[in-house]
Amino acid sequence: MSAAQESDAVREMRNWWRTSIIDVQPGVIRIRGYAIEDLIGRVSFPQMIWLLLRGELPGAVETRLLDAALMSAVDHGAQAPSIAIAQMAATCGVGLNNAIGSAVNVLGDVHGGAGEQAVELFDAILKRIDAGTGETPATEAALAEFVAQHGKIIPGYGHRFHPLDPRSPRLLQLVDEAAATGAISGRYARVARAVEATLERQKGRRIPMNIDGATAVIFAELGFPAPLARGLFCISRSVGILAHAWEQMQQGGRNKGPIPRQYLPSYEGPAPRSVPPAGTGG
Amino acid sequence: MSAAQESDAVREMRNWWRTSIIDVQPGVIRIRGYAIEDLIGRVSFPQMIWLLLRGELPGAVETRLLDAALMSAVDHGAQAPSIAIAQMAATCGVGLNNAIGSAVNVLGDVHGGAGEQAVELFDAILKRIDAGTGETPATEAALAEFVAQHGKIIPGYGHRFHPLDPRSPRLLQLVDEAAATGAISGRYARVARAVEATLERQKGRRIPMNIDGATAVIFAELGFPAPLARGLFCISRSVGILAHAWEQMQQGGRNKGPIPRQYLPSYEGPAPRSVPPAGTGG
Amino acid sequence: MSAAQESDAVREMRNWWRTSIIDVQPGVIRIRGYAIEDLIGRVSFPQMIWLLLRGELPGAVETRLLDAALMSAVDHGAQAPSIAIAQMAATCGVGLNNAIGSAVNVLGDVHGGAGEQAVELFDAILKRIDAGTGETPATEAALAEFVAQHGKIIPGYGHRFHPLDPRSPRLLQLVDEAAATGAISGRYARVARAVEATLERQKGRRIPMNIDGATAVIFAELGFPAPLARGLFCISRSVGILAHAWEQMQQGGRNKGPIPRQYLPSYEGPAPRSVPPAGTGG
Amino acid sequence: MSAAQESDAVREMRNWWRTSIIDVQPGVIRIRGYAIEDLIGRVSFPQMIWLLLRGELPGAVETRLLDAALMSAVDHGAQAPSIAIAQMAATCGVGLNNAIGSAVNVLGDVHGGAGEQAVELFDAILKRIDAGTGETPATEAALAEFVAQHGKIIPGYGHRFHPLDPRSPRLLQLVDEAAATGAISGRYARVARAVEATLERQKGRRIPMNIDGATAVIFAELGFPAPLARGLFCISRSVGILAHAWEQMQQGGRNKGPIPRQYLPSYEGPAPRSVPPAGTGG
Repeated sequence: MSAAQESDAVREMRNWWRTSIIDVQPGVIRIRGYAIEDLIGRVSFPQMIWLLLRGELPGAVETRLLDAALMSAVDHGAQAPSIAIAQMAATCGVGLNNAIGSAVNVLGDVHGGAGEQAVELFDAILKRIDAGTGETPATEAALAEFVAQHGKIIPGYGHRFHPLDPRSPRLLQLVDEAAATGAISGRYARVARAVEATLERQKGRRIPMNIDGATAVIFAELGFPAPLARGLFCISRSVGILAHAWEQMQQGGRNKGPIPRQYLPSYEGPAPRSVPPAGTGG
Repeated sequence: MSAAQESDAVREMRNWWRTSIIDVQPGVIRIRGYAIEDLIGRVSFPQMIWLLLRGELPGAVETRLLDAALMSAVDHGAQAPSIAIAQMAATCGVGLNNAIGSAVNVLGDVHGGAGEQAVELFDAILKRIDAGTGETPATEAALAEFVAQHGKIIPGYGHRFHPLDPRSPRLLQLVDEAAATGAISGRYARVARAVEATLERQKGRRIPMNIDGATAVIFAELGFPAPLARGLFCISRSVGILAHAWEQMQQGGRNKGPIPRQYLPSYEGPAPRSVPPAGTGG
Repeated sequence: MSAAQESDAVREMRNWWRTSIIDVQPGVIRIRGYAIEDLIGRVSFPQMIWLLLRGELPGAVETRLLDAALMSAVDHGAQAPSIAIAQMAATCGVGLNNAIGSAVNVLGDVHGGAGEQAVELFDAILKRIDAGTGETPATEAALAEFVAQHGKIIPGYGHRFHPLDPRSPRLLQLVDEAAATGAISGRYARVARAVEATLERQKGRRIPMNIDGATAVIFAELGFPAPLARGLFCISRSVGILAHAWEQMQQGGRNKGPIPRQYLPSYEGPAPRSVPPAGTGG
Repeated sequence: MSAAQESDAVREMRNWWRTSIIDVQPGVIRIRGYAIEDLIGRVSFPQMIWLLLRGELPGAVETRLLDAALMSAVDHGAQAPSIAIAQMAATCGVGLNNAIGSAVNVLGDVHGGAGEQAVELFDAILKRIDAGTGETPATEAALAEFVAQHGKIIPGYGHRFHPLDPRSPRLLQLVDEAAATGAISGRYARVARAVEATLERQKGRRIPMNIDGATAVIFAELGFPAPLARGLFCISRSVGILAHAWEQMQQGGRNKGPIPRQYLPSYEGPAPRSVPPAGTGG
């Protein structure tokens, strides 16, 4: 149907679902203008992720960094609620898609949002630096502002398990290598380290960057807006979620609770009592 | 296993899942201290909802109001994203539980959160009144503060379809009847109407209370904290979600999109182009 | 827009979302033909659930039974994956709607589907009885067929915690009382007990009806098709899910895993090894 | 805590969450035995997906095929329910993780399960061939059996939009290239084409392989069990879901329904009627 022929109603309906990402016509699928059959075999999965989200194909250095950020955060075991939920879901008689759905769903502000918040923190520091403040006072001021607004947990720093998150130094090393090529600025890596130094000075002990901080540096260096730090983490963690759901399906089990069945939760409510006789019945 | 016998590890594990809501032992289920077999047949579903959330059984007036709030918000047809999602899910080869899961999940700040925000707004007004400000200036000040923080959409007022939401006057009438018995204070109904009057004065036209505003009045009068206004709306709307998912299953359909298949979305991205030859391959 | 005036495209678009449940027009909301303002205050939440799903208002006996089935299954504590998932979700920085979404989503074939399967089993027995087979041989034959198809777990009978599920006898008592009025046939209660007797005879020990069996009897007596046994269970359990998610939010906690943090999962995979040097890099 | 020191309860608790995928200790994260810091920068995202799911690192040919299958299925526009749901969710005030959760959740038997079913169909054919039946009669017999069990929609063949799905020939070409190296057998590609030929012979017109069929060939050639065809499709489609949810967030919109607001769904239920006066009230 040509645009000229279609009625107002049809135009409104098509417009209601307008997109710049994909054009699907009978026999034709174009992603951001590229025919899908031209992309297949020439563009990798990480490059396709970039293309869908950004509109253009990434260069080699950009591909390498995005790839590293995606592959490094796939899993952290069943102590992560997302993974535990996937495993429990897998014992309830639902499909792998549903196990992923329930699990990725909980990657909220606390579980999956640290990267997004870290990008926002880095941006706040850079904004102050760009306005003429020195790196250290800019970092201190932005940190103080963050704590005043959000509390004392600094997103992207410290880890409840790891004295030093083994993923961060290696990811930062890749960022430094990329910055040396000039493909990225390295500014976010610099302020991320300034935050680390400031926290150590303030707390008297090191609170090292964790995976969320290191991937936030990568996403920000690559120009992704803050909310996509969370979105990309969801794509990454979906892999661990799928792997653990599948492993659990093969282990078997039905209605797996969080602790073995013989250890019941502790009850702290009212002691046994009788239902009052009148005025409350249905 | 007695508390004295159990090891520290077991105690920590049980404690990790402690609750005041339910005590489950072999052959025993107690809800807030009441044996389930004593509740069945004597306590209605709305009363059970109250008992689980509040810890005690409600009185007759409280039951009647909670019941009305729950039954009035069950459905608003497929123009509501939650209902449309349930119908589409039902054509994708998933269970009714999954259709409900995907649909209730989107009752977020914009779709399901107006009641919660309305309770917060009413509380802000009452706090000013309790501090000695008159009703009108307290309402104006709290409204101004709300707009400054959240923008000009006032939660609980106005409706994109209905010049007057037909549910609100009837629900308010029930609140007035309950207030006349002295079982509730009627204070929230009063400030909710003060908001309506203030908005009319400010805008020069009536922006009447909608279902979210009216149920917010009920939940607040009954003493529910603001987040439970959203939680209870989720319980209520789950019913419409289930009904429409089930109706869709009976209508049949496979992979139902949002518009009939012959009307494709409008594409606004780059024109057809070739994949660049080198340096971008996987 | 009148039906006469609208174009084919508009008609197709409206038809794509046709429904018999609700009619929403500006200022008008009709549920199954009833104006919402006429229903509010006169029809209870359980009656509204019936109206949406069935198309007509229920009688008093029907209301009482549906209400009992809904209120009895709201919760079974955190050993149920749905409840544990809700609690974990509540610590991840998502809304109550999301905690409900992730949790109700797992009420699949194993966790939430027993009622649906029990109705199917009862129907299979009744079909044989209606065809002239005696109750006992009909029950034995249908059970044998079920086991051959689905395995030896009989839906609606036995419980991993409870030697006797305290909810079932009380629910069955309500069914018997309702059958005595003639409002329901009592046929499903009869075959459900025949299944219980047959299982005891075959296994040499009692495997008593559980909540899924007892509520399946109620839903089937009331004429609900089997899949709605699961759908209604989802509505019921949503209440416990909400209550536990809310309780967890008030307890606090961030990224709550399934077991206390000091007790790590057991690892059974390959021992530490080096990444092979070549041919595997990205 | 050493294994020798831990109590039975702790052992049971750790065992309840045992895994072969990941070993997390303070300062240590090992995936299938490999230290994460050794993997980062040397193993790509698709290779990590393989490692998590399969336990070993893939070779170059395997990586290339898995990568192509993952990148080719990321999106098919808003006519796919999963994408439309993501967009609608994005207007409801939920996070990107929730939009992904609701959307990936509907990749069920009909929307996301075709690849899984196609692998099962191919396996059924190969089993007959391995037992000595010729390719054509084996294909005809397995197809007839499939239709008898599941109905006449053959998973992986035909497309409601595309006379020829542009993704399939290119993906098959990659499979052929890989088979020529000897790294994969090419058997699944062969039976997949036999199905295509048989369908054409039986129907009198070509019903060409679609994306689900072509990726099923890849996953099966690579040795993935059938359910992971669905699981991997979920990972792939999550990318399109994220991209469209994000695009919608930037377009704005609140509570986006499936069709523009002025075009209401069609109502086909009972005409307006009065609530009966007695015996039905709450």
